[in-house]
Amino acid sequence: MYEVTFQFDNGESVTSFATSGENLLEVARKANVPIDAPCSGNGSCGKCRVRLLAGGLNSTKTRHITDAEYEEGIRLACRSTICDEVTIGVPDIASAYKSRMKVADLSSKDEIKIFEEAKHKVIDADIPLSNTMRVVEVLMNSPTLDDTMPDNERFERALKHEVNSNIARIPYSVLKKMPDVLRSNDFKVKAVIRQTEKDVFVYDIYGIDEKVIIGGLVVDIGTTTVSALIINMENGQVLAKGSTGNGQIRYGADVINRIIESQKPGGQEKLQRAIVDETLNPLIAKMCSETGFDPDHIYRMAVASNTTMNHLLMGINADPLRKEPYIPTFFKTNSLYASDISIHIHPDAHIIVSPNIGSYVGGDITAGTFVSMIWNQPTFSLFIDLGTNGELVFGNSDFLMSCACSAGPAFEGGDISCGMRATDGAIESCRIDSDTMTPQFKVIGEKDTKPVGICGSGIIDLIFELFSCKIISPKGKFVREGERIRHDHYGMGSYVLVFREDAGGEKDIEITEVDIDNFIRAKGAIFSAIRTMLATLGFDVSMIDDVYVAGGIGSGINMKKAVGIGMFPDISIERFHYIGNSSLTGAYTMLLSTQAEKKTYEVARNMTYLELSTVSGYMDEFVAACFLPHTDSRLFPSLEIADQKGEV
Amino acid sequence: MYEVTFQFDNGESVTSFATSGENLLEVARKANVPIDAPCSGNGSCGKCRVRLLAGGLNSTKTRHITDAEYEEGIRLACRSTICDEVTIGVPDIASAYKSRMKVADLSSKDEIKIFEEAKHKVIDADIPLSNTMRVVEVLMNSPTLDDTMPDNERFERALKHEVNSNIARIPYSVLKKMPDVLRSNDFKVKAVIRQTEKDVFVYDIYGIDEKVIIGGLVVDIGTTTVSALIINMENGQVLAKGSTGNGQIRYGADVINRIIESQKPGGQEKLQRAIVDETLNPLIAKMCSETGFDPDHIYRMAVASNTTMNHLLMGINADPLRKEPYIPTFFKTNSLYASDISIHIHPDAHIIVSPNIGSYVGGDITAGTFVSMIWNQPTFSLFIDLGTNGELVFGNSDFLMSCACSAGPAFEGGDISCGMRATDGAIESCRIDSDTMTPQFKVIGEKDTKPVGICGSGIIDLIFELFSCKIISPKGKFVREGERIRHDHYGMGSYVLVFREDAGGEKDIEITEVDIDNFIRAKGAIFSAIRTMLATLGFDVSMIDDVYVAGGIGSGINMKKAVGIGMFPDISIERFHYIGNSSLTGAYTMLLSTQAEKKTYEVARNMTYLELSTVSGYMDEFVAACFLPHTDSRLFPSLEIADQKGEV
Repeated sequence: MYEVTFQFDNGESVTSFATSGENLLEVARKANVPIDAPCSGNGSCGKCRVRLLAGGLNSTKTRHITDAEYEEGIRLACRSTICDEVTIGVPDIASAYKSRMKVADLSSKDEIKIFEEAKHKVIDADIPLSNTMRVVEVLMNSPTLDDTMPDNERFERALKHEVNSNIARIPYSVLKKMPDVLRSNDFKVKAVIRQTEKDVFVYDIYGIDEKVIIGGLVVDIGTTTVSALIINMENGQVLAKGSTGNGQIRYGADVINRIIESQKPGGQEKLQRAIVDETLNPLIAKMCSETGFDPDHIYRMAVASNTTMNHLLMGINADPLRKEPYIPTFFKTNSLYASDISIHIHPDAHIIVSPNIGSYVGGDITAGTFVSMIWNQPTFSLFIDLGTNGELVFGNSDFLMSCACSAGPAFEGGDISCGMRATDGAIESCRIDSDTMTPQFKVIGEKDTKPVGICGSGIIDLIFELFSCKIISPKGKFVREGERIRHDHYGMGSYVLVFREDAGGEKDIEITEVDIDNFIRAKGAIFSAIRTMLATLGFDVSMIDDVYVAGGIGSGINMKKAVGIGMFPDISIERFHYIGNSSLTGAYTMLLSTQAEKKTYEVARNMTYLELSTVSGYMDEFVAACFLPHTDSRLFPSLEIADQKGEV
Repeated sequence: MYEVTFQFDNGESVTSFATSGENLLEVARKANVPIDAPCSGNGSCGKCRVRLLAGGLNSTKTRHITDAEYEEGIRLACRSTICDEVTIGVPDIASAYKSRMKVADLSSKDEIKIFEEAKHKVIDADIPLSNTMRVVEVLMNSPTLDDTMPDNERFERALKHEVNSNIARIPYSVLKKMPDVLRSNDFKVKAVIRQTEKDVFVYDIYGIDEKVIIGGLVVDIGTTTVSALIINMENGQVLAKGSTGNGQIRYGADVINRIIESQKPGGQEKLQRAIVDETLNPLIAKMCSETGFDPDHIYRMAVASNTTMNHLLMGINADPLRKEPYIPTFFKTNSLYASDISIHIHPDAHIIVSPNIGSYVGGDITAGTFVSMIWNQPTFSLFIDLGTNGELVFGNSDFLMSCACSAGPAFEGGDISCGMRATDGAIESCRIDSDTMTPQFKVIGEKDTKPVGICGSGIIDLIFELFSCKIISPKGKFVREGERIRHDHYGMGSYVLVFREDAGGEKDIEITEVDIDNFIRAKGAIFSAIRTMLATLGFDVSMIDDVYVAGGIGSGINMKKAVGIGMFPDISIERFHYIGNSSLTGAYTMLLSTQAEKKTYEVARNMTYLELSTVSGYMDEFVAACFLPHTDSRLFPSLEIADQKGEV
């Protein structure tokens, strides 16, 4: 056994022991030392960089590390094994996580616009915005020597009378508070209840003079990014909005790698802890502390997430999802409570999980499909959710078909060396002067915010510009030279969008051929999935009436340019609608409206699923789409015209 | 601040800090050092003996400590305050607790006789012995690419079909196990369910080949003693039986002192932890480990206990119980689960609480009244539960009246210097030769078990013998001299039943005038309560058809001698029936039979409660009864006759 010390940037350290030959990334994971590893340790992403500070380490040098860096001790954890006592410098990812956590400033109307719009869409669909939660006053007489009814019966009698119900359920948590709350408020109280046709459930009791807001928690658990809202359950007002990275990221960037990791000893629990204890609970705590909302006043929660994410959230074996015949443990469940999985809100809070429809189309898509309202229209719509998995739903009020393709995290800035999410400091759009190859760009955030990376919409722009300026070939290889074009000694080309001195970080913001290649495969997966699914239905892209694009790619997405790189079909730009994070808005409507929740289950039940890999010709479609814009340029007639006109 | 070190007999120690003048018993409690203090620190019981090992302590010498003992450093913790750094030797009460914990040998038919009898009584009353729990087989087809229903829907469909129900509830714990249990058993499983008219609740799933016994836990929480059973819910078989001391004892011997203690900061939690973590969970663990039963297979629990005990068990404020108008938080509750109060059985196990009918008549009495069957007879019966509180129920199939009196722990051997419970080593009966004053006695346990103390039935015998041999006066004072009679230098007399050399412990087994006085007040409380309650109903003791005596006093109780000291009314001895721990057997029948549970609620609802303190003349009755046998000897005519005949 050798002693392995992990030394964090912030000065803290963790000591562990390992045997000769053990993989350093595995040692770190066992010691609960977080190291970013989107590819889950197969050596392809180059993100698990550590620094050899003292002692020995058997490492393989890869293209992800320059000679100079290797000299300085930089190693990939996944390509290193233990051979001696060693001290390893690791980035302080915990601080990095924290800095990625963000609570929105709700004074900006933009932040809550999509929720207001969602409410209107629900109302327009004739679905009432009401739910079963409310606050009622329960007024009792104080007991006397002649009126000795115990507290709970006294309360129950008054409550049943107040709400006109026959059955009241009072859980232990309320019973426990009851003698004190009743006596300190002269037997005049308020109760937070959920009333259904069947019965009344009491979540909490308060003194009659207390101000009580029934909080609801809305969570979208993406493979890469987690977003959440705290809302007022009685009127839908957004009280807090936040987002953060999914803490499971260090166990793999995509769902397959996470499932594989979950199958290792203790893996299921580790992945559950990563999303609950390291992601959701800190996010909830931060949202609550910044807005002064008591997390114990959150009495209901809705989760929209893909099937793997909701299985891992619940600590349920996700392995069957990736093995034939690909059977989830549940599509929906009615019996999940916050205390079951240690979410730090009111322990009796019911957790609604947006329904899955299969292993690869989950609750994020059903929630998104609901709120897109494509199920409520006679015309044909295509719903596209650009997450780490790309999912598509096509249909109308008569039918809905879904499919999924593995796009990777490129649309959220993952798998891209300078990629980032669409938050402050992200370049969300750009233009390049064809002659000088000098870029102009727009950065998210206040005026003069320095750029630190590129988000999805920015990458689309950048690749389109590089391509239309003929700086890169249809295959994504650099074909012009200039001060912004570089080639490393492996021959890999890159384009510097922002030089270090103008950037907010400590290095150049650039895009490499590997990045471009990753992105081309992502957009190729989407485009070929669209073509393949429509073909199985006997449809052609020209028959699409509307396209609803959802996901964290950023509201700055330029649909014309997205079409221009062959990501979306070449139809009239007016038909494209960016609807933001529809998983979150969908879950928001499910929580707010009992009828919307029911309708989402109905939409899910009626949706069929197409397994793309079983469709002959899909792989050929994919390969053909891994080109700018496509190997078959006849599919993009408007581009040829535009090119001739020098437009776009 | 002074350093206070508590040094246990077993070598362990705990260090704490205290300010000058702090009470040593309080310091010990804060440091979670258990010191027995039945009187809760008011100086009356003399049980909180500690030894001053080093340093200083301000102590008051009391009659509980001899000069020699004081010289040796013996102090009462409750009469000592901090004035310096100090090291205190404390008895290893944790070991003492453990040694008091006992799991019965069920090969002895005697141990389970009363449960068999209870079953017959229930059947004789035309109440079916069935409950809602059972094991069913759930057989599914394995999923295929053409049959992709998720696990939970597949299971639910097969279960509903099997049990012919429309609604199945599958909690998180079952959902979590489901993918693995289904797949490792080829989708053929067993389920532990509870089926009501409303729905089916699934507690657990197992492979089809596993042997599954549905365990039920029966608990009687007495103020002094806790007893428990693990049973097979399907046939009522007793699988394990155990008992232990109530860990709350160090916070006071009676309910009032416990409630007072619970009102101190953190007190409620401390008392809850004392009964749950220090008493019930270790007892359950021991019963399970000795019988090889998995505590997770206990799916339902029934508790019989007095109102204070069930409030403290649930961590619910018990203070209103002792303050006018004496209102409990609940008589009954339907929403208590093992996980709510951290009982270490299956977390979803429902806890049935035998119903209270008021602050001073609780679920122990309603359970006992049910199983006594006095509610099912036309004749008039008196039910007496001799616990730390004495409770009485009188009536027949037309009416039931109850009352409670504070008897103290004397019947269970508490408040008596050599008192103990009716377990191995306890003297359960005795005779004294009138001339030589030499005793003969019987000890519980195997042949040649040495006596270590006296249990309730033994104390009754001893006091009767001392009185009938005229060794003590009707007031309980020693009036003869002899080698077994002693007087300390306060003038307090005592009688040595067993000299140290013949005893199992390290000191003489004796009874003092203080002990006798405590016992006379206990029996006086019972007798005066009987007279008072009957009088308010216009009844006389001669109209009692049957007397059912319950409690931990021991099956060796000699009813004739109990009458002889004026504890019970002077009616024909044949009318007395000792029915053992009826709280435990009552809770046992509630758990086993859904109809018995319902009937117990009905019995409780129909029982009226008499608050003795509001009856004029009760105190006079009590004072008159604090005599051997009574100030009014006409109430005990048979004794006079017997005395003349030299009988009894």
